[in-house]
Amino acid sequence: MYNVALLGAGRIGQIHAASVAAHPKCALAHVVDVHQPAAEALATKYGAKVSSVEDALADKNVDLVMICTITDTHADLIEAAARAGKAVFCEKPVDLSIDRVRECLAVVKKHNTKLMVGFNRRFDPNFAHLQQSLTSGEIGNLELLTICSRDPAAPPASYVKGSGGLFRDMTIHDLDMARWLLQEEPVSVYASASAVVSPEIKEVGDVDTAVVTLTCASGKIAVITNSRRAAYGYDQRVEVHGSEGMLAVTNVPETTLVKSDAQGVVAQKPLHFFLERYAASYRSEFEAFITALEGESGPAPSGLDGERALILADAALESLQTGKAVAVKL
Amino acid sequence: MYNVALLGAGRIGQIHAASVAAHPKCALAHVVDVHQPAAEALATKYGAKVSSVEDALADKNVDLVMICTITDTHADLIEAAARAGKAVFCEKPVDLSIDRVRECLAVVKKHNTKLMVGFNRRFDPNFAHLQQSLTSGEIGNLELLTICSRDPAAPPASYVKGSGGLFRDMTIHDLDMARWLLQEEPVSVYASASAVVSPEIKEVGDVDTAVVTLTCASGKIAVITNSRRAAYGYDQRVEVHGSEGMLAVTNVPETTLVKSDAQGVVAQKPLHFFLERYAASYRSEFEAFITALEGESGPAPSGLDGERALILADAALESLQTGKAVAVKL
Amino acid sequence: MYNVALLGAGRIGQIHAASVAAHPKCALAHVVDVHQPAAEALATKYGAKVSSVEDALADKNVDLVMICTITDTHADLIEAAARAGKAVFCEKPVDLSIDRVRECLAVVKKHNTKLMVGFNRRFDPNFAHLQQSLTSGEIGNLELLTICSRDPAAPPASYVKGSGGLFRDMTIHDLDMARWLLQEEPVSVYASASAVVSPEIKEVGDVDTAVVTLTCASGKIAVITNSRRAAYGYDQRVEVHGSEGMLAVTNVPETTLVKSDAQGVVAQKPLHFFLERYAASYRSEFEAFITALEGESGPAPSGLDGERALILADAALESLQTGKAVAVKL
Amino acid sequence: MYNVALLGAGRIGQIHAASVAAHPKCALAHVVDVHQPAAEALATKYGAKVSSVEDALADKNVDLVMICTITDTHADLIEAAARAGKAVFCEKPVDLSIDRVRECLAVVKKHNTKLMVGFNRRFDPNFAHLQQSLTSGEIGNLELLTICSRDPAAPPASYVKGSGGLFRDMTIHDLDMARWLLQEEPVSVYASASAVVSPEIKEVGDVDTAVVTLTCASGKIAVITNSRRAAYGYDQRVEVHGSEGMLAVTNVPETTLVKSDAQGVVAQKPLHFFLERYAASYRSEFEAFITALEGESGPAPSGLDGERALILADAALESLQTGKAVAVKL
Repeated sequence: MYNVALLGAGRIGQIHAASVAAHPKCALAHVVDVHQPAAEALATKYGAKVSSVEDALADKNVDLVMICTITDTHADLIEAAARAGKAVFCEKPVDLSIDRVRECLAVVKKHNTKLMVGFNRRFDPNFAHLQQSLTSGEIGNLELLTICSRDPAAPPASYVKGSGGLFRDMTIHDLDMARWLLQEEPVSVYASASAVVSPEIKEVGDVDTAVVTLTCASGKIAVITNSRRAAYGYDQRVEVHGSEGMLAVTNVPETTLVKSDAQGVVAQKPLHFFLERYAASYRSEFEAFITALEGESGPAPSGLDGERALILADAALESLQTGKAVAVKL
Repeated sequence: MYNVALLGAGRIGQIHAASVAAHPKCALAHVVDVHQPAAEALATKYGAKVSSVEDALADKNVDLVMICTITDTHADLIEAAARAGKAVFCEKPVDLSIDRVRECLAVVKKHNTKLMVGFNRRFDPNFAHLQQSLTSGEIGNLELLTICSRDPAAPPASYVKGSGGLFRDMTIHDLDMARWLLQEEPVSVYASASAVVSPEIKEVGDVDTAVVTLTCASGKIAVITNSRRAAYGYDQRVEVHGSEGMLAVTNVPETTLVKSDAQGVVAQKPLHFFLERYAASYRSEFEAFITALEGESGPAPSGLDGERALILADAALESLQTGKAVAVKL
Repeated sequence: MYNVALLGAGRIGQIHAASVAAHPKCALAHVVDVHQPAAEALATKYGAKVSSVEDALADKNVDLVMICTITDTHADLIEAAARAGKAVFCEKPVDLSIDRVRECLAVVKKHNTKLMVGFNRRFDPNFAHLQQSLTSGEIGNLELLTICSRDPAAPPASYVKGSGGLFRDMTIHDLDMARWLLQEEPVSVYASASAVVSPEIKEVGDVDTAVVTLTCASGKIAVITNSRRAAYGYDQRVEVHGSEGMLAVTNVPETTLVKSDAQGVVAQKPLHFFLERYAASYRSEFEAFITALEGESGPAPSGLDGERALILADAALESLQTGKAVAVKL
Repeated sequence: MYNVALLGAGRIGQIHAASVAAHPKCALAHVVDVHQPAAEALATKYGAKVSSVEDALADKNVDLVMICTITDTHADLIEAAARAGKAVFCEKPVDLSIDRVRECLAVVKKHNTKLMVGFNRRFDPNFAHLQQSLTSGEIGNLELLTICSRDPAAPPASYVKGSGGLFRDMTIHDLDMARWLLQEEPVSVYASASAVVSPEIKEVGDVDTAVVTLTCASGKIAVITNSRRAAYGYDQRVEVHGSEGMLAVTNVPETTLVKSDAQGVVAQKPLHFFLERYAASYRSEFEAFITALEGESGPAPSGLDGERALILADAALESLQTGKAVAVKL
């Protein structure tokens, strides 16, 4: 039985709490949140106790810590949990600063901590199916990868301000997806981007529309297209062009209802946003984490995956600022 | 808080047990099964006790009874639960004999029992969406309804033998769907059917492939096509042709992965069978039951819905045997 | 070189004239139409002469006659052309009276006339592909056939009056399609139908919405659903359920453009009506006719196909009037 | 009546000859080809005479010249036809050298020649529909354009050698498509490319897989993905992401037949290559050319369109060689 301390009882914390409660080998023991009522609601629902970070980490019975707090607390909490000898799951990113990430991962390494970083999309059943088909050679060698990732609506400027910018906040998911599917590290990053969606985003110096191209030494190319706003909802597609065919994951519609009338043949919009679209991924992610704790190999995606995705995001930003492709060495 | 007694701990009983456990207002109290280990496993998982029917019904704290046992016990159990003053959810059918159904429903009526019959497909999100679009007038008046319902593989002859035959066992779901969508009772039933899938089914005198046509007084027509075996998996589609358009619910693929290669553009097969395809419907069905218990109007689908679907199934069988359309009066 | 006399310069005559002109082995020689300007326009366009039926049939150089006139002239013209020793293509139907059809085909037989009846849908590339896949055994044995055939808008009552009714006018195409795909003659026909689309159609005693079920001795079943009006346009689909899979031909959209916005994911409507939807079929049909003239086996679909489709249409009408399935012997 | 001289009787010349013959206002007068039998076959088929370039251009009755010869003759022939006072349609490209293109267009300008360059994809009904929806504001402002263009199989090295390379030979079509849809000239081009498909292509110093990003001053971005080989056939898709929605043109399948079996739900591959996929575009292109000859505004796409697409292709090549984004000024 794994006893779990949940740090952060917000939207994503609630999702992980449900996964913990549903897992036959896990129990939710502590819930911590700066907003007390949120912690209480969740603790009550699952029979856990409301705690502080200190108490939760001091509890010898706690085996693993789920970090679902705001971004700038992640690295500190990972380090504290590592020092306390707990296994750690942390929502992405480890930190927005690559130097801080490296410091943190050094602590993780020193304590031999089992750390999983929350790139949940790897666990989406559709993308997982694509990845399995690809690695089993169903379309030969990957040659060209295209990732389309567009949010339904731009976040408020206040969020954007502290987000680290489009590449570190949003594209980072796609960069991890690209690394996972390419099975080879990119050596070059080029980004073109603009702020055409939201004047507020422009004002805070960020971009909302982007095309990022990754090139590998072997000649494989990946291209990511992002937008902070898609009028038709959350657009999450991946296409892999290989030597013997193509694999594509399309969007998941809200229902399969199709209406044909004088206006046309109307299918439903994609599931609206990440909570609906990736609901299954969060459950599978947690199961994979527990499985990894019981196995010999560490959890994946690991801290290193978190670091590398951030390096690529930083390179994209540098490319945008310089107008040149940026060489990366991972 | 509703305390629930679950009668029957098989495949479908396990599904309902999970719905009970996940419902914030319900707790699983008793589990009954002639196969003791099945009852024990389920009781342990959800903190309930293993019981007998008698003890479960005698328990004053039990509010509702979920009947998930084999068909020929349904009517007796409904009556016993009604006499014990419990609310009742019963898997379809109430009974294979229309006379026995009527007797049973008389008892239900006498005791003013809240009874829901498990036509779960009404609660599938896709079909529910279709029904809402239809009743809100999105395609004008319904004129022609087509229901396609095909199982992935024929059941063993032993099952078929006691099933009541294709119409009472399988088509009955589609007959309920038709009544629900037509919003008008059929006045005539015609069935054409044959045993071309399975020699065993032929041997026991049943059919495995059928077309059933229902006609309403207003001129609305519904047609159901059934097969006991679809090589591509579970095929569950509905199409409503109305005066201003068409609504169609297509199958739900296992994943959205599509592979294009020299063979063609290959999408995934439909979700394999009812446990996967209708997983969401069982949860919504149970929620609707609890909501109905708290409201003034009784649960739907009701015992009357169970009776009427069976009348239509019996009429289909009579039509098949006589080669004539059979008039029905519901 | 085949010299062709075209009888009837209306909408469908113009289509066949273009096929004749485009065929490397054919030339349009005569155009006949009671409406002189129509005949002149077509004759001028393709370098043919305006003629009378008598002159066209008397012309020794004429090898084949295309009959595209109104229905009640078909049988007389076929006979006249047969007596004149010409090969004959005739638009469906041969006649609305089965007795007249038989008389006519007796003349055709006596003169050993090569006669093709215009069931053009057999030559649609999509349906032809389905038929080839089916006959090559790609889905094993056919068990259940469903044909959906719905027009974009109801014709005027004046047309309906002289049309022979829904079954002989519209369903007859689907009955031929069914015979072609079943590869076995139906032994029983049941029809349910109503007039819910158009009060004018009701007034003239016809129906506009129908479900026709055909049963074969081997157990194969076919079901046809018809409507005189589909708000989303011309709906022409076929689905074959076989022992090893399913083959389906869906509609052809006007273009492949898909718009996703706040309303949903909107694809284009089907090609609007038969002239657009079946444009390719008319060309292939004519090519098949010419190929048949050069071969040893006669053209297909033949006069017999025309006769049998009409017998089934008549049986459907009888079934509708009697409320019973009608036995047929083809 | 326009008399047409056709220069080049190869594959594409034959297509244009058919368009000329089918056009009510045009007649094919001269056919010229270095391979005499090809010229004769085409001339015979359409009642034209076999000619030399000199004789065709000297013929006062010739109104327009269709240039369908090999690329390195285009510019000379355009100039000669311009000097002879003819209207000119020329297959893309005008020339592989931008300097030669400019010289040639200077001659065209001097003689006030009506010149159309064969970017036929603008006339594909699907892309034309997309462009109309876009320009009529159906999805607000264009923000992000993605063009997928992949050939079914790599051409022989001999062809590649003289083709001007992937960007000038293949991508140029997509660059024209991008300019047409962006309705704004790109200011920057970045290309990433590799030779992973074909060792022969690598040997001759060309690439076969590419991603090209175009950026506009307003912030609009376009990305083109190319491959010389798609195992599933000719892949031609366009997607426009706008402020109020998305427009997408998908591939056109060979037929609409879909087979569902134990392997999955298998739709047909896209139409195999440009002759099938763009058959309709060639007809519309020629009609647009004739319409332009009768109007006041010149034909489009014009010589300038040809020049600009080539400038972008050259910029893509420079970007690939330098690893930097290349600024362009059109």
